[in-house]
Amino acid sequence: MRAAAVGDLVQLVSMRDLKSFLLRIQPEERLETHNGVIQHADLLGQPFGSIVHSHLGTEFALLTPSTAEITRTLKRRSQIIFPKDLGLILLKLSIEPGQEVVEAGTGSGALTVALARAVGTNGCVHSYDVRADMQNTARHNLELIGLSQRVTLKTRDIADGFDETDVPALFLDVPNPWDYLAQTHRALRGGGFFGALLPTTNQVVLLLTGLQRHSFGMTEVVEVMLRNYKTVAARFRPSDRMVAHTGYLVFARALNLEQPPMEPAST
Amino acid sequence: MRAAAVGDLVQLVSMRDLKSFLLRIQPEERLETHNGVIQHADLLGQPFGSIVHSHLGTEFALLTPSTAEITRTLKRRSQIIFPKDLGLILLKLSIEPGQEVVEAGTGSGALTVALARAVGTNGCVHSYDVRADMQNTARHNLELIGLSQRVTLKTRDIADGFDETDVPALFLDVPNPWDYLAQTHRALRGGGFFGALLPTTNQVVLLLTGLQRHSFGMTEVVEVMLRNYKTVAARFRPSDRMVAHTGYLVFARALNLEQPPMEPAST
Amino acid sequence: MRAAAVGDLVQLVSMRDLKSFLLRIQPEERLETHNGVIQHADLLGQPFGSIVHSHLGTEFALLTPSTAEITRTLKRRSQIIFPKDLGLILLKLSIEPGQEVVEAGTGSGALTVALARAVGTNGCVHSYDVRADMQNTARHNLELIGLSQRVTLKTRDIADGFDETDVPALFLDVPNPWDYLAQTHRALRGGGFFGALLPTTNQVVLLLTGLQRHSFGMTEVVEVMLRNYKTVAARFRPSDRMVAHTGYLVFARALNLEQPPMEPAST
Amino acid sequence: MRAAAVGDLVQLVSMRDLKSFLLRIQPEERLETHNGVIQHADLLGQPFGSIVHSHLGTEFALLTPSTAEITRTLKRRSQIIFPKDLGLILLKLSIEPGQEVVEAGTGSGALTVALARAVGTNGCVHSYDVRADMQNTARHNLELIGLSQRVTLKTRDIADGFDETDVPALFLDVPNPWDYLAQTHRALRGGGFFGALLPTTNQVVLLLTGLQRHSFGMTEVVEVMLRNYKTVAARFRPSDRMVAHTGYLVFARALNLEQPPMEPAST
Repeated sequence: MRAAAVGDLVQLVSMRDLKSFLLRIQPEERLETHNGVIQHADLLGQPFGSIVHSHLGTEFALLTPSTAEITRTLKRRSQIIFPKDLGLILLKLSIEPGQEVVEAGTGSGALTVALARAVGTNGCVHSYDVRADMQNTARHNLELIGLSQRVTLKTRDIADGFDETDVPALFLDVPNPWDYLAQTHRALRGGGFFGALLPTTNQVVLLLTGLQRHSFGMTEVVEVMLRNYKTVAARFRPSDRMVAHTGYLVFARALNLEQPPMEPAST
Repeated sequence: MRAAAVGDLVQLVSMRDLKSFLLRIQPEERLETHNGVIQHADLLGQPFGSIVHSHLGTEFALLTPSTAEITRTLKRRSQIIFPKDLGLILLKLSIEPGQEVVEAGTGSGALTVALARAVGTNGCVHSYDVRADMQNTARHNLELIGLSQRVTLKTRDIADGFDETDVPALFLDVPNPWDYLAQTHRALRGGGFFGALLPTTNQVVLLLTGLQRHSFGMTEVVEVMLRNYKTVAARFRPSDRMVAHTGYLVFARALNLEQPPMEPAST
Repeated sequence: MRAAAVGDLVQLVSMRDLKSFLLRIQPEERLETHNGVIQHADLLGQPFGSIVHSHLGTEFALLTPSTAEITRTLKRRSQIIFPKDLGLILLKLSIEPGQEVVEAGTGSGALTVALARAVGTNGCVHSYDVRADMQNTARHNLELIGLSQRVTLKTRDIADGFDETDVPALFLDVPNPWDYLAQTHRALRGGGFFGALLPTTNQVVLLLTGLQRHSFGMTEVVEVMLRNYKTVAARFRPSDRMVAHTGYLVFARALNLEQPPMEPAST
Repeated sequence: MRAAAVGDLVQLVSMRDLKSFLLRIQPEERLETHNGVIQHADLLGQPFGSIVHSHLGTEFALLTPSTAEITRTLKRRSQIIFPKDLGLILLKLSIEPGQEVVEAGTGSGALTVALARAVGTNGCVHSYDVRADMQNTARHNLELIGLSQRVTLKTRDIADGFDETDVPALFLDVPNPWDYLAQTHRALRGGGFFGALLPTTNQVVLLLTGLQRHSFGMTEVVEVMLRNYKTVAARFRPSDRMVAHTGYLVFARALNLEQPPMEPAST
């Protein structure tokens, strides 16, 4: 039976209101919540999955955080990519243990974390961002989670190109991905996976046009709509409100074409 | 630059109608399509991402298949879990390289494949199914893809329990998961991740009741709705029809509770 | 050109933040908003569609309110039925000018208003509610809008049955519609239209069972999901959040069956 | 109790597979279905809501068709507007008994029918279409349903303007509504309701730009997603597939502005 130890990254979830807290156990520290205080030291030796109590007696579940929970609770300086999109991105980019993958921009690091967990200890994520302040936030997050060794943060304008070549997968979370498609195609291996997330339809239209000009193919555009349900068995129903939109996900493959394929003839 | 070699698992996609074919290259074999015939031998040495031609001159892109594509093209004896759901399942169960995870039933093996790719060469998937014929289909699929070493198929009734203990994640894709929650809780480590997929609301209601009785917590029920768009830049719009429902995804954590927590007071 | 006159029901919409106000013009009164004060007297003679100004100079559009706007701005004591659902209800119940239709409960009167507008001056809505306080709120709303002559409010328990017979359409917005299906069937004409709105799946399951027992047929259950878009042409995209659920709409026809039809054989 | 008579417009729905047929009762005629033949004469005197039998013994429910059913079963030469959209259009345009409203193009007449039913015997629909063949189909449909007296079909290019002025509501179901906004504004009364349906985002962007230039305000863009459920109580769940997209609905009000309002500053 696994028990919490010094240095563990743990999640505490209030059984009262399901509020969630992420922390790395340091013997001298304490977590202050609106449901009372928990001394880190009191967690030591407690088995995961068990219930601990705040000084007010509120019950908290002691857990290891999921990738989804980690990304949700990141310190953020910008809109993060949501778990509903992260799952599909990893699957469509076909991320596997041991791979070396590239993303830009780093942002607050939500996708960075998801990629780093998916490539494992033998893989690597190269993450580009032109803003040093963003990358400092991401660095802070990666260190808290213990993933910094798998990630190289490059404070660089991707207009100047990527250092990497023969990359299996590359994701652009920037407002104008169509401006970097030549650089992206050079970085990707033949048939490599490209992805992007864009909030507006106007941006998608520009990216679709660009992808065709730069020898990408198998292009797909999708939206993921996630609907949460209330979990009371006697009154099973969807939640009242939901996230209606984060962005359009665009996926494509880097092809070696002498001339780009014709646009499909009709809608 | 990577080129196709004997034994490679490759995907050929018609540039004409985007129909996709999965094959493992064998020098003597040939692929017959409605767009013409392609000799496997003609693929050898071709770089990935390049265009090859059928005997009718139709262009095909030569690619390595994504996890999503692989699961979509599996030989199937039953409804498979869709990529839209697979991505979120991997993320919510927090599957990582090197883990040993459990699923039941095996079905045609779509989730098995996705789990096996995510845990990598150092991980393992234990997959239970009471039906030998199902597992034979899954075995065939896993061998084609080259993932059999990472998967142990157990033709067994999970009413008799799982062999494994201290498992980080366990997924039940069976019609009556509420009947196996005691066995599931015993197999999971403290705080371990539980998931299930159920088509009807009646099933979800039964599972929610069962999870509470068997010391599971942090229960979530979600639906993933995936909306595809047509990719013509000048006429950007959603596809006409979509998959409206595959199933409700239920996620929970295995807790160590002397007595189960109270149901939330109201909707 | 139509101009605002004493006694008109008008809508004022701030051009600054699109906040909307409903009022009936009384020469002595004034509207106070966070964007300044507007004297009713200043509206007299202004053409509809023109811009008026508050004492702070904020622009307001002078409009006649739509049915959708009216129902949105009703004084409410309970959850109202949303425009997204109202539109489909009117269409599926096939409400026409001149009809005499029935609903229960009255609630705050949103559906009452929509039905009363649709049946016109020659039609009539009979609205039942067991709670007098609810009906007082609805009465207040109907008087403000000027629809009281088309509506008879009956403070009555529908367990005792409806006064009306040969009714073309009857809608139940009560938590337990399955308890009143015999009464409902007696009130409806042969083939008459039945509708209900229910928040939980458990309720829908009970109603489906009841409808079959009470000689209803052609049963349909639907959800309406309405997605709003931001209207900036250069950044066209969905709103960030949306209403995920109001309720399941159930529609059926009253049949004359000696014995109820068999349930369809399979899902 | 109402019974079917010569000249009635009736709907017959097979109790076996819920296939639906619309017909106007003519004593000499017969309906041929894959579930057998029904003589119109055999329907005479049968009460609505009762069960009739084909010569093969299949049960059919005898009903009056709803507006939604009528529009679904129209003879069509073009994509019709779906009930999910029709309901919201009527509500947002605030159509009421006795009104005189305008639409273009006529198409197969689905919206024409819905508008004509909503305005009643004292109202009128003016429907423009440049194509005579389309209007002949619509005329045929309107005559079958018995609504021709409420509709004037004008075979005319709306670039030349509308005959009507002071119109309370006007709907454009044409591919390029932005080209007719000056004409539309002239036809509408001050504050009048404008609506349009457009399949692509590119079209919506053009219309949004046009509406602002032509003194429209209170602009809204929405999508209606309708989700059908299977109606088996023991296995309550959504249908497997759904219509993902028909079009974006755009609504606005005709304002009297000397200069158009500023675009909102940010998304």
